[in-house]
Amino acid sequence: MAERNASVAIVGAGDFIGSAIARRFAAEGYQLHLARRDGSKLEALVAEIAGAGGYATAHSIDARKEEDVTEFLDRANAAAPLELCVFNIGANVHFPILDTTERVFRKVWEMACYAGFLTGREAARHLLANGGGSMFFTGATASLRGGSGYAAFSASKFGLRAVAQSMARELGPKNVHVAHLIIDSPVDTAWVRERIAETTGGEVPKEKLMDPASIAETYWQLHRQSRDAWTHELDLRPFGETW
Amino acid sequence: MAERNASVAIVGAGDFIGSAIARRFAAEGYQLHLARRDGSKLEALVAEIAGAGGYATAHSIDARKEEDVTEFLDRANAAAPLELCVFNIGANVHFPILDTTERVFRKVWEMACYAGFLTGREAARHLLANGGGSMFFTGATASLRGGSGYAAFSASKFGLRAVAQSMARELGPKNVHVAHLIIDSPVDTAWVRERIAETTGGEVPKEKLMDPASIAETYWQLHRQSRDAWTHELDLRPFGETW
Amino acid sequence: MAERNASVAIVGAGDFIGSAIARRFAAEGYQLHLARRDGSKLEALVAEIAGAGGYATAHSIDARKEEDVTEFLDRANAAAPLELCVFNIGANVHFPILDTTERVFRKVWEMACYAGFLTGREAARHLLANGGGSMFFTGATASLRGGSGYAAFSASKFGLRAVAQSMARELGPKNVHVAHLIIDSPVDTAWVRERIAETTGGEVPKEKLMDPASIAETYWQLHRQSRDAWTHELDLRPFGETW
Amino acid sequence: MAERNASVAIVGAGDFIGSAIARRFAAEGYQLHLARRDGSKLEALVAEIAGAGGYATAHSIDARKEEDVTEFLDRANAAAPLELCVFNIGANVHFPILDTTERVFRKVWEMACYAGFLTGREAARHLLANGGGSMFFTGATASLRGGSGYAAFSASKFGLRAVAQSMARELGPKNVHVAHLIIDSPVDTAWVRERIAETTGGEVPKEKLMDPASIAETYWQLHRQSRDAWTHELDLRPFGETW
Repeated sequence: MAERNASVAIVGAGDFIGSAIARRFAAEGYQLHLARRDGSKLEALVAEIAGAGGYATAHSIDARKEEDVTEFLDRANAAAPLELCVFNIGANVHFPILDTTERVFRKVWEMACYAGFLTGREAARHLLANGGGSMFFTGATASLRGGSGYAAFSASKFGLRAVAQSMARELGPKNVHVAHLIIDSPVDTAWVRERIAETTGGEVPKEKLMDPASIAETYWQLHRQSRDAWTHELDLRPFGETW
Repeated sequence: MAERNASVAIVGAGDFIGSAIARRFAAEGYQLHLARRDGSKLEALVAEIAGAGGYATAHSIDARKEEDVTEFLDRANAAAPLELCVFNIGANVHFPILDTTERVFRKVWEMACYAGFLTGREAARHLLANGGGSMFFTGATASLRGGSGYAAFSASKFGLRAVAQSMARELGPKNVHVAHLIIDSPVDTAWVRERIAETTGGEVPKEKLMDPASIAETYWQLHRQSRDAWTHELDLRPFGETW
Repeated sequence: MAERNASVAIVGAGDFIGSAIARRFAAEGYQLHLARRDGSKLEALVAEIAGAGGYATAHSIDARKEEDVTEFLDRANAAAPLELCVFNIGANVHFPILDTTERVFRKVWEMACYAGFLTGREAARHLLANGGGSMFFTGATASLRGGSGYAAFSASKFGLRAVAQSMARELGPKNVHVAHLIIDSPVDTAWVRERIAETTGGEVPKEKLMDPASIAETYWQLHRQSRDAWTHELDLRPFGETW
Repeated sequence: MAERNASVAIVGAGDFIGSAIARRFAAEGYQLHLARRDGSKLEALVAEIAGAGGYATAHSIDARKEEDVTEFLDRANAAAPLELCVFNIGANVHFPILDTTERVFRKVWEMACYAGFLTGREAARHLLANGGGSMFFTGATASLRGGSGYAAFSASKFGLRAVAQSMARELGPKNVHVAHLIIDSPVDTAWVRERIAETTGGEVPKEKLMDPASIAETYWQLHRQSRDAWTHELDLRPFGETW
């Protein structure tokens, strides 16, 4: 593994997609800078990456706070020039419209859209200064379609997609690759398997679950794209999904 | 004009589209309840409607405050059962992404998306209790497409569209007609004519401007649709527009 | 009913939507010119319209034949200046991809897309010569989304929508209103009620069926729109539909 | 280069994108089977691939003829099991609607949509029999949007996209990866450079042109995706493109 003097920052480095992306880029020699609400939950991942000869740091941030996001990305970029930032915070909630409190609507937006704007803007600042790089946003089915009971979640995911599109159009010509990836199905995790087993009362339909490592591979391929042929939006679904 | 014992409430009753909708429904005998930041600016309109034999009330509200929205719609519904609510607040701003402050991003969202959610939810509460009715949201080109420099505005308008879609799917079967109208061009106002004249240095292309009264007519026709054939989204553009 | 010296032509004047549109515009004083494969099936409708004081003619055409379409619209326009043309031919088929013969794929396209192009182009010729008018295309869910087993039908309906969009952009500035209406649910007909009763084995969910007259009303309202605020696409669904 | 006992078939193996895809997969050890109207134009490419230690065959076919498509894919699959088929025929024409002859409308559809259906269906037959594989369709901006003057071209590209979507939904669960790639800008070719130079009268904006090899790389990465995380649609644009 060739070490690179370049950073990848992940805001929303959760146990599944975020962690898988971290592993994939660490394996390519990037310095990984990982942020989530409780950074101590990243200890095992940081150790795993170090054990494999890579390098990663863990950070506790509240991504809804401008100063937290700014400081996190400043540190990442100071350690090594930022080359990619991934915004990967979800906040899936489901409430009938009359039961959607203003607190829920606001909080989901702060986590899934506003924090994405802050992350995108602060990452852009470094990427532009560095001469280019990538900013990727994780989307969902709710980014494209407002379903019954999903006013809060969809409003946030639609909004995040708008941020991605606006940034892509403004920053592409300045050598910053902005993309929005629509993860359109459940990811294969212990928790999801339990929920499915509960609901279906039996077997887990493996053909309808995604391995986080497969998702991470597409983030890597996107980042590798030559700038004369960039993708700005794509979907990811398991082969057995009907939609 | 047959008087109806029914209310139409407009949140964002501005000088153009909001006022035109008010006139159109007042002419059909509805009680109009009009809200904007500074309700005193509605005095002339209220007088005009009264002069024509109609009825309207004006309200100063901050549509970003839950209690203001709740009180306004409670009052409207107390005066006569709410039959239609229109959310018509825009908040068009344009900033390069690096110059988009967190304050701007948050404020635009509060006005153009969050206030729409509050309005939609509180209107739904009354409409459901009344056995049905309509909730219409005013959208824009930025509802469908995130352009360069429009991260804040598009994120809000995308979000509002998601609220409309989610509500439509949940509330349609409960007899509430939720629709999203995409106003895709400038409206013919003194201000717009001045701006265009400034930019083009001369003539105003009348074929590219919309008369607010024409827009209001479509709100009326939508509200009149039979419930077995409801429209949930449509666009409005002047004939000379190229897009 | 004020008689108008103006024609409305309908290609695909079937028993339900096409007939309802004919009745609606006849009631407004338009001359109706109706075409379907077997024009003799229109006798009752023509008599009904005449009985109500209106005027209609019936024509047998193969809308896949340029000369048939041209002659039909020439005649309609000769009787009275063409003001609106509606293309309303459907061709819903469902086959697994391997069972979709080239004959089926081609025939469905000829009926649902190619005939629409011929109709649109020939109508445009008259409307432009007459100084303006409307050209409306009937779409379906399959216009927006290619479902399993719908390659032939969706390819045709997607194609028709492209024709509508292209024509709208080119002809709008020339005073021709081109619109695409997405009829997104079954229409309430004896046949549909039988099929649903068969499938569900019992009651017909009336809240999921559309009355053709309600659909026709929207065609009328669209045609009446002021040219400074034209709609180019809208959907129509019954209130009880979940989608 | 490890040889693989597997075929890649390309219908529409033109000088740029088609040829680049051929080179990319040949370099991975696949047998390439290339078809275009005049197969003799593929001689240099076949020789180049052979010279690099690969294997390719050239075929003259009329992709609008069922028997030509069937025979071509039968041969490819007989040489080595078909693993990927790419449909890459374009047919960009621009005519005002009144000047769009029925011959043009039909011919463009036969080349850009109908031939794609035949290719997709026949490829699916082999891929299903082989237990899986990929079928990729090349799209364009006109696949998403009908512009003025593009009725014929857009109707065909919209239709092709519908075929891709229908096939993806039906065949995904059967282990066939169907994807639609939207090539949203001019490709960097001598011809395009000349046209641009003519139009702009000077410099060629390199940041707005795509290298066919960069496009081909994405076809390769898509084919390599793990089946638990397949992409069904993506766009490709050069970094300097504004859209």
